[in-house]
Amino acid sequence: MTAGPYVVPVGHVSSPLTDPGAAPKQGDEGGADAWITFGDTYRAAARDLTTGAEVLLLTWLHRADRDTLVVHPRDDPAAPLRGVFATRSADRPNPIGVHRVTITAVEPGRIRVRDLEAVDGTPVLDVKPVLAGER
Amino acid sequence: MTAGPYVVPVGHVSSPLTDPGAAPKQGDEGGADAWITFGDTYRAAARDLTTGAEVLLLTWLHRADRDTLVVHPRDDPAAPLRGVFATRSADRPNPIGVHRVTITAVEPGRIRVRDLEAVDGTPVLDVKPVLAGER
Repeated sequence: MTAGPYVVPVGHVSSPLTDPGAAPKQGDEGGADAWITFGDTYRAAARDLTTGAEVLLLTWLHRADRDTLVVHPRDDPAAPLRGVFATRSADRPNPIGVHRVTITAVEPGRIRVRDLEAVDGTPVLDVKPVLAGER
Repeated sequence: MTAGPYVVPVGHVSSPLTDPGAAPKQGDEGGADAWITFGDTYRAAARDLTTGAEVLLLTWLHRADRDTLVVHPRDDPAAPLRGVFATRSADRPNPIGVHRVTITAVEPGRIRVRDLEAVDGTPVLDVKPVLAGER
């Protein structure tokens, strides 16, 4: 494995979800309402986020196993092994979570989002607006 | 800026697009057909990708300026400055591109995708299937 560039956490998730085993596998299976708190350095980047906006939230799934290349989908040992690029497993070479969520509140330095499946303390890497072609 | 974990390139883009200035701003404005070639280490992760599948391709936009927090959208100096988290600018603290593309061919160690706006040589970080809730 050849190491590439660093990522920087621009914020973190505050959520009632704390146990990765109990966390839902996907947001549409029912995540939790969560706050995203931005680091002071990155507040300017977040200044135009608005309530009601649909965004892609990128996280760093810090508990993932980066050496995993194939998995039993949904942790079901009876399911045939699949290459991780054909799954949404957190275990993968670059454990970047892509979460499509709606912003439900905006406060100085933080936003609230609905149905996020990331556990408390998960580092946030980026927020992007959803494009028309992605709806 | 506190450095976080490394990302690793799992492959790279081969595309006729070479000039970032000439590249379309978004895939739905007409990108180019491109090959994604996986590094030998990561072939197993890609083994279940299939023609016709709609995927999120995550790239590392290696020419981006990571110190940029606000931009004039679409490089239009007349456009009011916006925080980058409310834009799809490549310039942002973690320049991770999220490209929603369709796989049009699968060969050993590589896949072909339609309408990708990333330039030739762009490192690839991840491939994920599009979820039903994201359609």
